[in-house]
Amino acid sequence: MNKKGYFITFEGGEGTGKSTQIKLLADFLEKKGVVTVLTKEPGGTEVGQDLRKILVTGEPDKMDAVAEALLYYADRRIHMTKKVWPALEQGKWVLSDRFADSTVAYQYYGYNKKIDKSILQDLYNLAVGDFKPDLTILLDIDPQIGLSRSIKKAQGMQVKELRHEGREMAFHQNLREGFLEIAKENPDRFAIFDANQEILSLHTQIADYVMKRFGLI
Amino acid sequence: MNKKGYFITFEGGEGTGKSTQIKLLADFLEKKGVVTVLTKEPGGTEVGQDLRKILVTGEPDKMDAVAEALLYYADRRIHMTKKVWPALEQGKWVLSDRFADSTVAYQYYGYNKKIDKSILQDLYNLAVGDFKPDLTILLDIDPQIGLSRSIKKAQGMQVKELRHEGREMAFHQNLREGFLEIAKENPDRFAIFDANQEILSLHTQIADYVMKRFGLI
Repeated sequence: MNKKGYFITFEGGEGTGKSTQIKLLADFLEKKGVVTVLTKEPGGTEVGQDLRKILVTGEPDKMDAVAEALLYYADRRIHMTKKVWPALEQGKWVLSDRFADSTVAYQYYGYNKKIDKSILQDLYNLAVGDFKPDLTILLDIDPQIGLSRSIKKAQGMQVKELRHEGREMAFHQNLREGFLEIAKENPDRFAIFDANQEILSLHTQIADYVMKRFGLI
Repeated sequence: MNKKGYFITFEGGEGTGKSTQIKLLADFLEKKGVVTVLTKEPGGTEVGQDLRKILVTGEPDKMDAVAEALLYYADRRIHMTKKVWPALEQGKWVLSDRFADSTVAYQYYGYNKKIDKSILQDLYNLAVGDFKPDLTILLDIDPQIGLSRSIKKAQGMQVKELRHEGREMAFHQNLREGFLEIAKENPDRFAIFDANQEILSLHTQIADYVMKRFGLI
């Protein structure tokens, strides 16, 4: 792939404000003259929308961690080949609400390491190869605070995406620690921000960081 | 798993008569006092039905071979854990319209070996482990004949499952040769039947074979 744009991913648990912050960053970048593509996982493509519905609705135990990992990677493969890579080749910046770190955080750490981490690495290699995000922004928050935000938000949704919210608090604590662990293992790729603060103040911090990181004026 | 029943899979290209023959065999076995579970891939479970719809409808190029393989294996994992293994533990015989050989035939041979066969083996190990069918019945037919049957059948369906039928004849020729190749590599597990014959005559051959193979009287 002849990559000309940057790929920035947003990660974090439920209710960390990813979708709000990613939109604010996209608007900010567009004003700086950068052409952005705002996308998400699961569900960044038409097929992915159907997969997203399967993954984020219904009973928590309707499938196990292995099945979930396979589905997330099917979604990711379609997302990469049909949307992310073509946009990067055109010089656009792609901002994605979640990417592969979420699979490790949810399916490995969230489920208390019930599946082998190397399986997730194998699936990554199969679906994504040696491609990686240029920057991953981790929004970190106490899951007690995040979950109450997330459940509030779902009350206004037609399709209630609460399959993960129904899990016990230990799952969400594991998730948070998982994300922080992944960030520690990939210090060059990750930037961690405290998500328990006012929306615009957080946005300003993220925007400043991105400007410096990618040499925008 | 404490397996008490047998797992029999039916394989073959489009329009080989798998669904007809599997029903006839199930009826035959039930009359012999065997409790059977009739199932299929993709789509043997509720979640699988949604996955099946994604896989067998729409444009041939809506996803690539890697994405397809991941989706088929997600479906398979859910099928195994939620339906096939529990039934086998209860002593039921499970008859499945397609299983993992179809993934190798379609995604490896059908697509002209564009993806690595070892990837499919890795996915099998991940989703299914060292579990295998006790018997695989391959219905073999000239794809010209099979496809015309399959397209005729779809004319009566509400959702037209013709995504694979839209591929060129070379794909279906590869597919047939692929199935025969897999059968050759697994002679103990496979039994090949000529699907270009009258329905009841084919059924009698299959029923006789199964009776002998599993010691039924």
